[in-house]
Amino acid sequence: MATEPAPISFARGAPSLDIIDTEGLRAAADRAFTTDPAGTFAYGTSVGYKPLRAWIAERHGVSENQVLVTNGSMQADAFLFETLVSAGDTVVVERPSYDRTLLSLKGRQADLRALELEEDGVNVRAFADLLAGGTDVRLAHLIPNFQNPAGYSLSGDKRRALVALAREYDVTIFEDDPYVELRFSGESQPTMLSLSTSGEVVYASSFSKTVCPGIRVGYLVGDEDLIAKIAKLATGTYISPNMVAQSIVNEFVRGGSFETSIATVKTALAERAARLADGLRAQIPDARFVDPEGGYFLWVEFPEGTDGDALFDAAAARGLAIVKGSDFLLDGAKNSIRIAYSGVTPDEIDEGVTRLAQAYASL
Amino acid sequence: MATEPAPISFARGAPSLDIIDTEGLRAAADRAFTTDPAGTFAYGTSVGYKPLRAWIAERHGVSENQVLVTNGSMQADAFLFETLVSAGDTVVVERPSYDRTLLSLKGRQADLRALELEEDGVNVRAFADLLAGGTDVRLAHLIPNFQNPAGYSLSGDKRRALVALAREYDVTIFEDDPYVELRFSGESQPTMLSLSTSGEVVYASSFSKTVCPGIRVGYLVGDEDLIAKIAKLATGTYISPNMVAQSIVNEFVRGGSFETSIATVKTALAERAARLADGLRAQIPDARFVDPEGGYFLWVEFPEGTDGDALFDAAAARGLAIVKGSDFLLDGAKNSIRIAYSGVTPDEIDEGVTRLAQAYASL
Repeated sequence: MATEPAPISFARGAPSLDIIDTEGLRAAADRAFTTDPAGTFAYGTSVGYKPLRAWIAERHGVSENQVLVTNGSMQADAFLFETLVSAGDTVVVERPSYDRTLLSLKGRQADLRALELEEDGVNVRAFADLLAGGTDVRLAHLIPNFQNPAGYSLSGDKRRALVALAREYDVTIFEDDPYVELRFSGESQPTMLSLSTSGEVVYASSFSKTVCPGIRVGYLVGDEDLIAKIAKLATGTYISPNMVAQSIVNEFVRGGSFETSIATVKTALAERAARLADGLRAQIPDARFVDPEGGYFLWVEFPEGTDGDALFDAAAARGLAIVKGSDFLLDGAKNSIRIAYSGVTPDEIDEGVTRLAQAYASL
Repeated sequence: MATEPAPISFARGAPSLDIIDTEGLRAAADRAFTTDPAGTFAYGTSVGYKPLRAWIAERHGVSENQVLVTNGSMQADAFLFETLVSAGDTVVVERPSYDRTLLSLKGRQADLRALELEEDGVNVRAFADLLAGGTDVRLAHLIPNFQNPAGYSLSGDKRRALVALAREYDVTIFEDDPYVELRFSGESQPTMLSLSTSGEVVYASSFSKTVCPGIRVGYLVGDEDLIAKIAKLATGTYISPNMVAQSIVNEFVRGGSFETSIATVKTALAERAARLADGLRAQIPDARFVDPEGGYFLWVEFPEGTDGDALFDAAAARGLAIVKGSDFLLDGAKNSIRIAYSGVTPDEIDEGVTRLAQAYASL
C-alpha cells in the first residue's frame, strides 16, 4: 500500500467523545463547587460522597448503609474479591466473560468454573448440576445485561432461578451490571438484587457508561454487614474515594443531565449496532452473531476451525483492531472475536467491516 | 454546663475550607474540560493523566517512566506495600509514625522495627546498628518533612547518611513526603530521592495539602522497573485512576494557582502554629513541644506518668478532640498527644488550648 489506512478500533469498550455530555459535566462541576465546596474538596469517608450514595440507594430501593461508592467499579470488584475470595475458593464465571475479571480472580488463585453463556444468559441447568453435585461455590460472577464480551442478556426466568439456587445453596451472586442503562430495544428485566430476599446478591454498577469513564465512579450494593466490612478495607486502602468526582456525578444525575445523556448514548449505540450488524450480514455471511439489544459489544463466531489468531493478525495488518475471543475464555475456542461498536462512528464501522471481511477472506 | 460548647477538633489532619482555593479549582476544571475533553473524560491508563505525570517528572528531575499518578497517596502506599512487602519482611518505621501506615504494614504482617524519631529526624545511629547487626531490612518508611504526628523534619546530614546506608545494605527507602511544600520557616533540605544515585529511594507525595484532599491525587516516583510493576498492579485494580481529577490538578498546577494556593496555606499554617505554641506556653507550662517549621502537626509530651487516655477523655468531655500519642506508636508511651492545627481558626485554637489546659488540670 502507498499510504497506511487510518487505524480503526473495534477493540476498545469505551464511548466515543461525541456521545459524552461535556457541557453537562461542566455545569455539574460548577454546581458541585458552588453548592457544596466543603463536601466536594475535603476528605470524605470510604463509603463515598453521601448525597450520591443516597441517590443510588433510592434508585435501587435499598438503605444507604447497603451502598459503597468507589473509584470505578473495577475497584469495587477488587474490594469484593479481596473480602470474599480466598485461594482455592470455587467461583463460577460465564464462558466467555470479561477478561479483567477472569485475570483478577485467577490472580487470587480462585478455582474458576466457567459455565456456558447462552443467548438468554448463563446455563442455569449446568449451575444447578454443579451445586447439586456438592461443589461448594463461594461466588458466581454474572454480567446480566449486554454481557461483555458476548452482548447477551439474562432472561427474567433465569434471573429468578439463579436467585433461588443461590438462596438454596448459600452462594453469593455477584451481579456485575455496568451496561444496564444502555438498552435500546427489547424488554428490561428486574435486577437479581431486587429479586433477592436475604442478601444473596451483591450488585455493582458504574457511571462510566452513562456519565463518562474518566470520572471513575462505580458502586457496590449489598448486605449491610458485607458493605461495612468492605468500607473498612477501603478506608485502609485510600481513606476516601474521589469526592470531587462523586460530587460532580451527584450534580449530573440529580440535575437532569443523566436522562439526556443516556438518551444520547442509546440513540448512538442503536445506530452503531444496526450499522455493524447490517454490514456483517452483507459482507461476511459466515459470521454468526445475535443482534444486540443494548450495550457496547457484539460477539462474532466464525465457522469452526477458523483461526482467530490469524484473523486478529490479518485485521491488524489492515489497520483494524479487534479482540480475540480467546481472551475471554479460560480455554481454547479460537473461532470468535469481540467487536466493540461504542467508540466508532457509523462510517468507521462500514470501513471496519470491509477490512474485517478482507481479513477473513485472506485466511 | 447549661449549654454544650461548640466542638473543636485538634484531631483532623486536614485543611480548613477557607484555605482551599475554590475559585482556582473552578477555573482549572473549566480549562481542563475545554482544552482536553478527550483526555479528561475517557479512560486513561494506570500511570495517570500524562500531562500531570510529565509535570511531576519535571519537578523532580526524573523521567516520566519513573512516575505513577494515583488516587491519593494512601493508594500509592498500598500498591507499593503490596509490591514490596511480604509477611515476615522487616520494615523500619519511625517512632511515632502515621497510624494508617502502621496499620497497613501490620495488616501485611510485616516485622516492624520502630526507630526513635528525634527532633532532627529518625535515629540514624540505631538504623546503622540494626543493619550492621545483620538484620535484613526490606523497606524503611520515613516521613522527612513535618512528620505526622511529630512535626519534626529530617536534617540534611541524616538524609545523606540514610541514603548511603540504604545503598550499602540494599534497603529501599520509602520517602513519604506529603507536607514538603508546607515549610513556613527554617531551611529546606533536598529530598532523599534527589540524593540517591541507584534507585534506593521510592518517593511519594500528593496534592491533598496543596490543592485539596477531596481531589485524591497522589503519586509515586521510583525506579522505572518498580514503577512499571506497580503500574501493572494498578491496571488490574482500577484500569485507570481518576482522569477528571488529575486533569483538573494538571491545570491547577500549570496555571499559576499552585503557587498562590501554597502561599495562602503556608501563611495560615504559620499563624495557626504560632498561636498554638504561644497558647500552650502560656496556659500549659508542663507541655513540651518543638515549634513547628511547617506542616499540620504539633506533638506534645506531658510529664512522665501523665495518663494520655484520661487526658483524651477529659478533653472530649470539654468538646475538644485530640489524638492520643499511643495511636502512633507500636507500644506504650501514653504521655503524649498530637495536635493538628491545620483545620482550626486562630480563635478556635485559643479556645481549644484553654479546654486542653482545663482537661490537663483536671487529671
